[in-house]
Parts: sequence; structure tokens; C-alpha cells
Amino acid sequence: MKARAHSDQCHHPGPALDPAGKEKLLGRLRRIEGQARGIHRMIEEDRYCADILVQISAVQESLRSAAQVLLQGHLRKCVAEAVRSDDSARTEKVFEELTELLGRYGR
Amino acid sequence: MKARAHSDQCHHPGPALDPAGKEKLLGRLRRIEGQARGIHRMIEEDRYCADILVQISAVQESLRSAAQVLLQGHLRKCVAEAVRSDDSARTEKVFEELTELLGRYGR
Amino acid sequence: MKARAHSDQCHHPGPALDPAGKEKLLGRLRRIEGQARGIHRMIEEDRYCADILVQISAVQESLRSAAQVLLQGHLRKCVAEAVRSDDSARTEKVFEELTELLGRYGR
Amino acid sequence: MKARAHSDQCHHPGPALDPAGKEKLLGRLRRIEGQARGIHRMIEEDRYCADILVQISAVQESLRSAAQVLLQGHLRKCVAEAVRSDDSARTEKVFEELTELLGRYGR
Repeated sequence: MKARAHSDQCHHPGPALDPAGKEKLLGRLRRIEGQARGIHRMIEEDRYCADILVQISAVQESLRSAAQVLLQGHLRKCVAEAVRSDDSARTEKVFEELTELLGRYGR
Repeated sequence: MKARAHSDQCHHPGPALDPAGKEKLLGRLRRIEGQARGIHRMIEEDRYCADILVQISAVQESLRSAAQVLLQGHLRKCVAEAVRSDDSARTEKVFEELTELLGRYGR
Repeated sequence: MKARAHSDQCHHPGPALDPAGKEKLLGRLRRIEGQARGIHRMIEEDRYCADILVQISAVQESLRSAAQVLLQGHLRKCVAEAVRSDDSARTEKVFEELTELLGRYGR
Repeated sequence: MKARAHSDQCHHPGPALDPAGKEKLLGRLRRIEGQARGIHRMIEEDRYCADILVQISAVQESLRSAAQVLLQGHLRKCVAEAVRSDDSARTEKVFEELTELLGRYGR
């Protein structure tokens, strides 16, 4: 995993999320971590597989929401910033990344 | 979350996963928990949002694989068992659950 | 595309859909065909791409519903029938097909 | 369905697709229409439901590709254009539409 800080990439002051948005997202992630541990335990305890599947689908829903929040921030901050920069190499790079992301998230 | 043990529901000896399959699935869950913690940390460190999105998509992929393994076991054991039981109320219940699960997982 | 009639495969009288269910599904398909023609026309007329994307997403939703109807019928008829047959080669074949289908439709 | 021409919305000369891209997309749509008619026929002929499900999933894949092409064009042309316009109401409108689209297409 590449360790790019947000600001290196985006050349704009501050991250794509304001402090409140970041705190909220961290809260979501804590909940997701708890859900993952819960599923681990359900498997250990040989719980009914249909119930485990419902829980997995709940984590996926939580991840989808988190991804939507990040993607919106990414578009409104990083992508918009790159477009406004009139630096065509930078803009192209951001759009290529976005193509790859939308391929991953698209259905 | 309802605490149904696997055997209560399925009326067949043993879980839908054999011991090796269960161990493998627990390994996947451990990795998913690690991935979720990694994403938490990336958000805390204000890492580049496109990189975080790639990681979220990797967890989603891991969860999809885990769900596929469980769903296959569920169909081959629990659903097949219910069908063979010739207990029409039980069969109906299992198919209703399955409809709900496929609605959650279908695209 | 393999031309297997339903009855060849399933060894049970009648298709997985009753006549009313079949008629309803054909109605859905007619609507989907109309939606696809509508999208074709929107592209020809250089309509706003965000509006075209909304329409594509509507067709996908229609296809998902149609697939859910068929999948339910498939599980309740073909899969259940194979399980009840106690023909293990046939059951295995149906479950392998199902694995492939759920891989396609799973998310 | 609102009948907005592309140029009304986007205030930039020409559509989000160049003529070659448009022709290619129309070709895809023709193929999708053919696939939809094929599925209609398969249902009429009581073909094996697992085979019909494979075909439905193929249409879904074709639509996903078409949507990706349009979404890329939309981002690179319409969204970028709105951002560059420095018209904050217009930019906001485009991002709100995008949020809704990504909600529809996200997984």
C-alpha cells in the first residue's frame, strides 16, 4: 500500500473531509470493525449460516456508505481541485484514478 | 441479532462448513478485521482518499468471497436438507430466508 | 448459447414458472426492450448524459427484478427437484451451475 | 423523462462523446436490444432458467460497460466544464446529480 498523504497528492490545504466529517467516518469504521469481529465470533460459535450472511450484508452496506462519503469528498475536493489547476497532466492522472475507482465500485 | 445455533435451525448433524472450511473462513475474517483497522488508520492519518477507496473496495471483495463460501454451504447443506425433509413448512421457511438473502446479495 | 429446453434439464413436468408468472415475466421483458430502444434514441439525439445514465440504471433495476423472479423459480423447482431426485451426479451439476450463477449475480 | 438536450445542460460545444465514441455506444445499444429480444424468446420457448439467467447477466454486463463509458464522458466533459465555469450554482447542481448517479451505480 502506497503511503501518500492526502495533501501530497491534492495540493490543497486540508483533507477532503472536514473535522466533523472525518470524526463521523471514523465512527463508521469503528462500527464496521465491531461488525467484523461479531461475524468472526458467529462463525466460531457455529451460528446459523443464513444469520451470518445477513450480518455480512450489513457490513457491506456500511462499507458502501463509507465509500460514498469518501467518493463524494474526493470528487468535490480532489477532482475539482485538479480540474481547476489547469495542470493537464495532474487532471489526467486524477481522471485515470477515478476511472479505476468507478470500475471497482460500479455495478 | 437472533442467537440461533446452526444445529437448531438445520436439524442435521454438524455445521454447513467442515472443520477445514471453518478454519479457512475464520482466517478470512481475521484478514477482514485487519483490513478494517488499516482503513481506520488511513482515515486518521488523512491519507489520500482515492487510496482509502481502493482499500475499502478490497474489503468488500473479501466479504463477497466469504459470503459466497457461506452461501454455497447454506445451499448444499441447509437448503438441501430442508428440501429432503419433506417438511413443507420448514422448506418454505428456508426458501423465504433465501429469497431475502438473494435480494440482499443480488445485483 | 446452448439450446436446452427447460424440461430436458429439469426432469419435471412444466417449467419453473406457472403460466401467469411466465406472462408477467414476458411483460417485464417487453418493457426492458422498450427501455433499451429508448436509451438508443436518447444517445442518437445527444441527450444529456446524466439523464441517459438514470435510464440505464432503470433498465438494470428491471433486469435485476426479472433475474430474481427466475432465480427463485429455479431454486424452488429445478434445484429442489434435483435434490429430491437423490441422483447425486444431477444434484452436483445443479449446484455447480448455481455456484456460477451466484458468482455472476453476487455482490 | 425530461427532454434536456445535452448542450442545454452543459454549455459546451459538442456532446460528451465524440462521433466515433457515439457510434460505438450506439452499436453496444443495438447489441443490448438484440440480447433483450433473445431473452424474451428464451422465456417464450420455456428454455432452461439457468441458461436464461446467464443471458440476463450478460445484458447487465453490457449495460455496465455502456454506463461506464457515459459516466467517464460525463465526468471529463460535463463535470469538468461545470467546475471550470466557476458558476457555483451550476457546479453544485452537477455534483448533486453525480451524488444521485453514484448512489444508483455504487456497490
